[in-house]
Parts: sequence; structure tokens; C-alpha cells
Amino acid sequence: MAATLNDVARSAGVSIRTVTNVLNGQVKVSDSTRKRVLSAIERLDYRPNLAARNLRTGRTGILALVVPDLAAPYFSTLASIVVQEGDDRSYQVIVEQGDLSRGIGQSSRGRKTLADVVMFASDASGEEIQSLQQGALASRLVFLGEYDVAGLFPQVGIDNFAVGYDATRELIGLGCRRIAAVGAESASEFLTPRRRTEGYIAALDESSANPVAYVARPVSEHTRAEGYQVANELFDAHPDVDGVICYSDTLAIGVLAALRDRDVKVPEDVRVIGVDGIEEGRFCTPTLTSVSFDLREMVDSAFRVVKEQSLEPVVLPHKIVHRESTTSTRGQ
Amino acid sequence: MAATLNDVARSAGVSIRTVTNVLNGQVKVSDSTRKRVLSAIERLDYRPNLAARNLRTGRTGILALVVPDLAAPYFSTLASIVVQEGDDRSYQVIVEQGDLSRGIGQSSRGRKTLADVVMFASDASGEEIQSLQQGALASRLVFLGEYDVAGLFPQVGIDNFAVGYDATRELIGLGCRRIAAVGAESASEFLTPRRRTEGYIAALDESSANPVAYVARPVSEHTRAEGYQVANELFDAHPDVDGVICYSDTLAIGVLAALRDRDVKVPEDVRVIGVDGIEEGRFCTPTLTSVSFDLREMVDSAFRVVKEQSLEPVVLPHKIVHRESTTSTRGQ
Repeated sequence: MAATLNDVARSAGVSIRTVTNVLNGQVKVSDSTRKRVLSAIERLDYRPNLAARNLRTGRTGILALVVPDLAAPYFSTLASIVVQEGDDRSYQVIVEQGDLSRGIGQSSRGRKTLADVVMFASDASGEEIQSLQQGALASRLVFLGEYDVAGLFPQVGIDNFAVGYDATRELIGLGCRRIAAVGAESASEFLTPRRRTEGYIAALDESSANPVAYVARPVSEHTRAEGYQVANELFDAHPDVDGVICYSDTLAIGVLAALRDRDVKVPEDVRVIGVDGIEEGRFCTPTLTSVSFDLREMVDSAFRVVKEQSLEPVVLPHKIVHRESTTSTRGQ
Repeated sequence: MAATLNDVARSAGVSIRTVTNVLNGQVKVSDSTRKRVLSAIERLDYRPNLAARNLRTGRTGILALVVPDLAAPYFSTLASIVVQEGDDRSYQVIVEQGDLSRGIGQSSRGRKTLADVVMFASDASGEEIQSLQQGALASRLVFLGEYDVAGLFPQVGIDNFAVGYDATRELIGLGCRRIAAVGAESASEFLTPRRRTEGYIAALDESSANPVAYVARPVSEHTRAEGYQVANELFDAHPDVDGVICYSDTLAIGVLAALRDRDVKVPEDVRVIGVDGIEEGRFCTPTLTSVSFDLREMVDSAFRVVKEQSLEPVVLPHKIVHRESTTSTRGQ
């Protein structure tokens, strides 16, 4: 038989109101009383009735984060920050690995989560997002990244056209003339890779020096192994490539390993630039130049816009962090 | 006003039992009915009463995973597998970042989670574990790693004495004579680093060739930056070190970067070996030799022992994966 609030109150020798005060983190409870209540909770293995609390307070205190793969450094860093920032705001964070086609905040059996807030940072096509409209999810869903959601859902992202454009301009400025892009996805309805490729093409098009573009075959996933594989195929077909833009640092680290195994010198023969600014890029060889932005600012903004129900897209600034893979000097 | 089961049933034109059958994943519901029910759930934003389900089924379907830091590759890989394997078993996974001193399955406000299962993979001293006994947590808690919990809680781990011993024997066998260990922790009550150091010392002690031991200062965290820092201090004090055992691959990658910046050749001048077998070790320069074990097997075993309430510790096998940081040949 599960312990009730009443059991806890009786065991601790306090009123039910005092127990709920402790559970809700009220400060007016004395330390010794709080200790007694927590000890009774522990002893009786009491678990608060989440649904009952939900009726009282209108919230469950659960936040669902949806990412494609927690093992990918960008997403694990994001998740670490969401758990930390969520904890500061008394949220417990449920992590789901999946995409929009599999449902949002939903387990595989069609059960909806109890989440008060859903932060979505996985793959979603514009069509899938449109189909979400019918639900009442809108009030608690926020997109992390650039998606086709303007006017439908809150979102906090970066300008991926500018990311692709700036990275390409950087390589052109350093003298690259045959520049490849790695990270396009076969599901071309995903906005982020598509916008980066558009920026890449735009920068090449307007370059008076006429550098050549090679868009590598679509990647199946953003892993080091996939970057390694794609780079080998790319350089087998186009050994004259002298600059590579990777749409994630993780892909770039695989590209660096492939170039090393091919005895291609970076940055002397080929310059490589990534996106995301993950910590690993400061320690790989050569260290990795990357288009970076502030993940903590993204998460903080997400809490704000979902609370304010703001449909105005938040676009965070990005910057290029220069390291050895483009410049031969060791940066930060 | 929150939607009820009854609202969903009425809206979908089915019985309440049919709705619960859909929610519980029963197969006897036709596809078209299931679709109608899920659509009504979405339209009404119905959220199942978790506590009510708990009373009916005796479970909430929530699993709590406690790790020190989700941004660390070992723990993000572990979390990714727990979320995946949990999903296969209809669990939603709450991730907490913290240690035992902060409470287990508890938020900062003393609210207990609803978790049916708690998988603990963070720092815990023997004393802290003893103090858990009073609670009724025992029936749903499993430790991932080596902890002082024999006879108290289920656990699945590796033999960390053997890990330290085997890694040291490997370096001795390759000719290292002045071997340092990086990864001891100042909170020496944590069993894992302590046991690895004991294995390291034992291997050195029994070596007829009398290699010299240097235990580096305790690390504050298992990051690349900390490995980099500790390695610089270590080699400033003991430039004659010719072998380094790191208690995590992440520390080892920082050590490799420090040695590179000091123009020390790996493995020619210094051989480096890590622990954990993270993917990054296959792509860093030089590639990293590591004492590895099967994380998926660890998670699968954890589900089994917590279900069986087995207090017999499960000790998984480990093996050394040989790569360039010890052997000058590129391995897998």
C-alpha cells in the first residue's frame, strides 16, 4: 500500500499543511521540522501524487527535452545545460531521443508526457510542424534551433544562412578556391542544413575569385565516423578540394581524421571549419576552427519565450572561433 | 480545465476502456480506432493521470538516471543507451546531474521523484550509501559502477582493481619504467579511483623491473581541460615520466593535448592509456589505447538485477583496445 500525505504527517507529528509546505519548498518551515518531514518521507517511501499536485498548482514540474541523439556532443552539452537550468527552476528533465515524426513528448505507446514544457531540438520538417497545430501543445512547446515555425511556436535559434555564408567567406578570405560542404541531409526538408547550404552557395556565387563548390553526399548522421567516411569519398572524387565546411564539429573531427590518414596537411593543403563550438574542438589535432554560439543563452532564452508565449523568433549571435584547422596558429 | 479520460472517450466516440487499452498499448484495438483515440488525445491535450495509473498498475513508467555531468562523453553515452533501452521497456527517463550527497531521485526541494527505477552512476561514498538503507529506495535502486553496496543494493560494474592493474601491466610490458597515474580524486572515499590506484600500485610492486610510480595530484573533474592542466603539472615536476595511466579517456585526451604542446612524442617518448572506450578515442591524435567494456551490457544487466532484486554484484569483463597512444600502430 502506497504511503499517503496523511501517513507522512502522522509519522512526522505535523499537519498535512506542513508536509505540503516542505514539499513545495516554503521557507517558513523550521529546519528541524523540515528534517523530520523529509525523514518520514524517506522512511515511508512516500511519492507525491503528481496528478493531484497538477490539479492544485496547474503544473507537474516536468520538462521534456527532445534530441536526436544524446551521445552526440552538441546535444549532450545542450542536455547538460537544460538539466542544470531546469533544476534551478525546479523542473525535472525527461530526455527523449527521437524526431517529430515519432511524436513529441510522447512515448512509443502514444502516452503523452506530463511535461509542462517541451524543448524540441531534433529533426522536424515544415510539414510535420504544421501538423502539430491541431494539438494544444502550442502553449508549452519551444523549438531550439531554426525551424519553419514562425508564428506558430516559440523558437530560439541562430541564422543558419549567415552561418554557412560566414564560414565560406572565411575560407575564401584565407585563399581557398575549391570549397566543399559536408553535412547536407537527404531529408532536405530540414531547414538547418538547407539554410547553411544556401549561405555557402551565396558566398561562393558572389566571390569575384570564383571558387568552386562541391556539396558532398548527404550525411546519414552527425558522427565522427560519418565525417570520416564522407571525407574519404569526397577526396577520392575531388582531390583538389582545398577547403571544407562541416555543418557540425563532430563531422569535422571525422574529416580531420580522414585527412590525417590520407597524409593531407591541415591547414596547409586543406582548411577545415566546423559549426557548434564543442569543447572537443579545443583538444583535437589540429584544433578546430568553429562557428560558435552560446548554448546557455539559448536555453535561458527558451525558458523566457515559452513563459511569455512569445512567437517572435529569437536569433542568437554567432561568431567564428579561430584555431589551427584554418590558421596554423593555436587559438582558444 | 484539464481534459479527462471521459472527455477523450466521448470525443472519440468510444468507451473509456477502449481509451485505456490504447494508452496501455493493447493490441486488440483496431488501427482506425487507435488513430481516432490518439487524435482526440492530441486535440484535447489530455494528459494521463500518472498517479491514478500508478495505483492501478503499481508503476509510473519513470526511470531516474543520476550522473555527475551529462556533458562528459562517458555519461552522455551511458545516458543515450539508458534512454534507448528504457524506451524499449516503456520507461521515460529523467536525468539528474548530481551526487549522493544531494539526495537520490530527489529534486533540490526535497520532492521525491516518481521513479520506478533509479540508476545511479555518480559519486557516492560508502558512508553516504550506508545512510540510504533506512529508506525504501532499496527495491528500485541499482548502482552502475563499483560501489561499496555489496548486500545492500543491486549493482553492475567492472573490477576497477583489475582495470588499474591491467593498464599498468600493459605499460610495463611495453617497456615503461616511470609510470604516472592521473585521475585520483581528493574525495578518496570514492571506490572507483581508489581501486584503480590500488591496482596500479600492485602492478608496479610486483614488477621485477622496478618501474617508478607517480600519482598525480587529485583531479577536480574528468574533463579534457583538467587532464591538460594535470599533465602539465606532472611533467613540470617529473619530466622523466614515460607512461601515463588516465582513469578516464576524457582526461587522457587532455593529457595528449598537453604532451603535444610540450613537443613530447606519443608513444615514442611517453605512452598513454585511458579507461572507458569512448568513441572520441578512435579519432583523436594519436588514437587512444583504452581499457573498455560494454556499456549496453551494463544497462541491460541493470534492468535485470533491479527486476530480480539480486544483490549479487554483477562484474562485467573489460579488455584493452590497443591504438596508437601505446603501440604506434593504428588499431580499431
